Amino acid sequence: MDEKDVKIDQYLDANLDGSLAELAALCAQPSVSAQNLGIDDCANLVAEMLKKRGFATEVLPTGGAPVVFGERKGRSGKTLLFYNHYDVQPGEPLELWESPPFQPEIRDGVMYARGVVDDKGHFTSRLFAVDALLNANGGELPCTVKFVLEGEEETSSLHLHDFVVNNKEKLAADACVWEYGGVDHLDQPTQSLGLRGICYVELSVETANQDVHSGLGGSIFPNAAWRLVWALNTLKDENERILIPGFYDDIVPPTNRDLALLDQLPDPAEQYRTQYGLKGFLKGLTGGVALKAAQVFEPTCTICGLTSGYQGPGSKTVLPAKASAKIDFRLVPNQRPEKVLQQLRAHLDQHGFEDIQIEFMGGDTPARTDPDDDFVKLAVATAEEVYQKAVQIEPMSGGSGPSSIFMEHLNLPVISAGVAHPGAQMHAPNENMRVDLYLLGAKHIARLIKRFGDGE
Amino acid sequence: MDEKDVKIDQYLDANLDGSLAELAALCAQPSVSAQNLGIDDCANLVAEMLKKRGFATEVLPTGGAPVVFGERKGRSGKTLLFYNHYDVQPGEPLELWESPPFQPEIRDGVMYARGVVDDKGHFTSRLFAVDALLNANGGELPCTVKFVLEGEEETSSLHLHDFVVNNKEKLAADACVWEYGGVDHLDQPTQSLGLRGICYVELSVETANQDVHSGLGGSIFPNAAWRLVWALNTLKDENERILIPGFYDDIVPPTNRDLALLDQLPDPAEQYRTQYGLKGFLKGLTGGVALKAAQVFEPTCTICGLTSGYQGPGSKTVLPAKASAKIDFRLVPNQRPEKVLQQLRAHLDQHGFEDIQIEFMGGDTPARTDPDDDFVKLAVATAEEVYQKAVQIEPMSGGSGPSSIFMEHLNLPVISAGVAHPGAQMHAPNENMRVDLYLLGAKHIARLIKRFGDGE
Repeated sequence: MDEKDVKIDQYLDANLDGSLAELAALCAQPSVSAQNLGIDDCANLVAEMLKKRGFATEVLPTGGAPVVFGERKGRSGKTLLFYNHYDVQPGEPLELWESPPFQPEIRDGVMYARGVVDDKGHFTSRLFAVDALLNANGGELPCTVKFVLEGEEETSSLHLHDFVVNNKEKLAADACVWEYGGVDHLDQPTQSLGLRGICYVELSVETANQDVHSGLGGSIFPNAAWRLVWALNTLKDENERILIPGFYDDIVPPTNRDLALLDQLPDPAEQYRTQYGLKGFLKGLTGGVALKAAQVFEPTCTICGLTSGYQGPGSKTVLPAKASAKIDFRLVPNQRPEKVLQQLRAHLDQHGFEDIQIEFMGGDTPARTDPDDDFVKLAVATAEEVYQKAVQIEPMSGGSGPSSIFMEHLNLPVISAGVAHPGAQMHAPNENMRVDLYLLGAKHIARLIKRFGDGE
Repeated sequence: MDEKDVKIDQYLDANLDGSLAELAALCAQPSVSAQNLGIDDCANLVAEMLKKRGFATEVLPTGGAPVVFGERKGRSGKTLLFYNHYDVQPGEPLELWESPPFQPEIRDGVMYARGVVDDKGHFTSRLFAVDALLNANGGELPCTVKFVLEGEEETSSLHLHDFVVNNKEKLAADACVWEYGGVDHLDQPTQSLGLRGICYVELSVETANQDVHSGLGGSIFPNAAWRLVWALNTLKDENERILIPGFYDDIVPPTNRDLALLDQLPDPAEQYRTQYGLKGFLKGLTGGVALKAAQVFEPTCTICGLTSGYQGPGSKTVLPAKASAKIDFRLVPNQRPEKVLQQLRAHLDQHGFEDIQIEFMGGDTPARTDPDDDFVKLAVATAEEVYQKAVQIEPMSGGSGPSSIFMEHLNLPVISAGVAHPGAQMHAPNENMRVDLYLLGAKHIARLIKRFGDGE
């Protein structure tokens, strides 16, 4: 820890409240991509935040939500690229929030807001680190820093692939820091080196041109809800085996090294049971490396939503003409979303469900970074300095994201570093961020940029 | 047709607009029992309509929606009881209505409103007949007339059974006219002599205390939507066979006479196909007596609604903690709803679905009236006079209602007579009533009361 590190940390300690206020203002701007709510306003707000720091900033069209890009040259010839997203999940169900999702509030050292941790707090903690570096280096950054923020991450990044492919030169860098990171349930920093892929679809069926009285049609008219139930039932059995032919064919199982890395991670079983009120886990899992491996190295077929007929209070004797289900398949190396989509169609047809329509709502391929990459080692070393704890290396994470695009088309190692904790309630009511972790996250990013620029 | 019949018909022809205005006012008063919307106000409005005609009227508590009872003594010692209901189905989905459900509108001789035919138009057409009889008889009715209107018919008449059992003397009569009736798709009057029973349940399951990010829990946490889909799948197979053990045991198949009566009825297949945009019917049915028998003499297991997780626009990667389905079982003689409920619980437990909760939301036993009863013959004869067409006798109808209570506890023959037509869109958007059928229905009821009172 040199003199400059001290100066950086002092700056961050002294200016925390200002950065939190900037984060609160960003969270107060709704940006729900699934509902097209506040997207453009949020993109402009993000662009202003970058410009304020001297970044050459552009709001670039994609065909969907715009991408915000910012670049500020630094002392060395090296370039570090930060990927973040400014969109958030919907606030619903609103009645389960203790404070409204778009009215950020700090209670007992924790900030509550939709998007506070996924992903706005990550973005502002990185800006905060930039501020500290500029302050410590006489207004100069140790290396060139680029930010790319998309506005469709929560709806499967539909336009990011084409954007990256069409802007390779603009995005060129030597390494990439992914949108998130943080600590595990024992407050140990984690390093996530991979993401599962995803194939998100909506299945729908229409059996008549209108709903009908169930007393009239119940025994002779087709029922859309039943068609959907029967079709869904063919996709996965009660033992969680996905029944689509060929679905498992391309899967590369975790290596012994992957399992050894997982084994070193704390066992999350008890924490999950308590936090989510679970009676148990699927497939007879109880914890340990088996649970951890299943969580990240196995693909899924999750029903995210079901809709049909009358859903209000009381009873309505109606036979529904329409039914639909939202489903996400989480994918592991080397599955690909476009192939799963083909397999799903073939499977439904084979079972006589030609009437079930499939709408593809977005996909990512799974992606991983080599644990032996120099940049990974730097991220781990700087984290251990800042957190004063050993880094937990996750060879793979359960979530998805478009990091595969950056790895494939920009040829970058991608590491994670951030401000999240396991109780952050991402994608759920009362999403929250611990202020102490926000400060540590900013310190880590500042040190990472400094060492990377200095070539240490 | 005697002089008095002529006078009655002339009165009805001359005063149609006034009665339609009264019906429109009644339809403008929402009375959605499933949503507890406007129930008391509607009960009071109905009571006023009866009082205006000299009926001794009471609004009686039931523990749920009140029952409105009215009685007016007549010349002969005989008593005719009319059963109606003042509650209606929900208006939703509102966007599919051409005019708002609670703003009645007449277009091209058809009145559109929620409840216009189910069941408010039936009630006012009977009041209209009473008006004509009072006018033709110097202010006297040919027999004692009683009206009983409940406010929970659309939510399975939860309190009617106890009400009838506790008010046998008040309700005592010689015969009963049920809530509805009308013409078939060839405009021939129909006489419906039975109703299927119903057992309405909501199945629900909760697998965690909150929804969770599908990337976190997808491969290791139980999913409420999947539990529900798998449980539902065990209830009925793709060939429409209900798989609950013992479900079919008590069923009395239709007699040859029943099938002969059905055979005389017009074939509705083509009309259904066109009106509802159906590609075909269930179980390979194409029409004829087989279709007609399946429609009314077979029990059903209909999913009326499905709810789980995210149902908004776009994609949300969430693993739902809760899921539920609304289901109605239509029952045929001699099934009983309480027995079906027991069988359902046992079936779910046997398949490992102890976690699926069952909420019983109402039931009726199936009920039939003897086609050879004198009152049936009178209803048929008067209808043929008024409509100048042969009456189509339906030994059983597909819908449900609490007529079994009246047959069992009041020992009454129950006939149907009314103003409905097959395109009336009951329980669906754009519910409607043809004005020409309203006038014919009132004429039929007037003649029926007159002959019944006169003992012809």
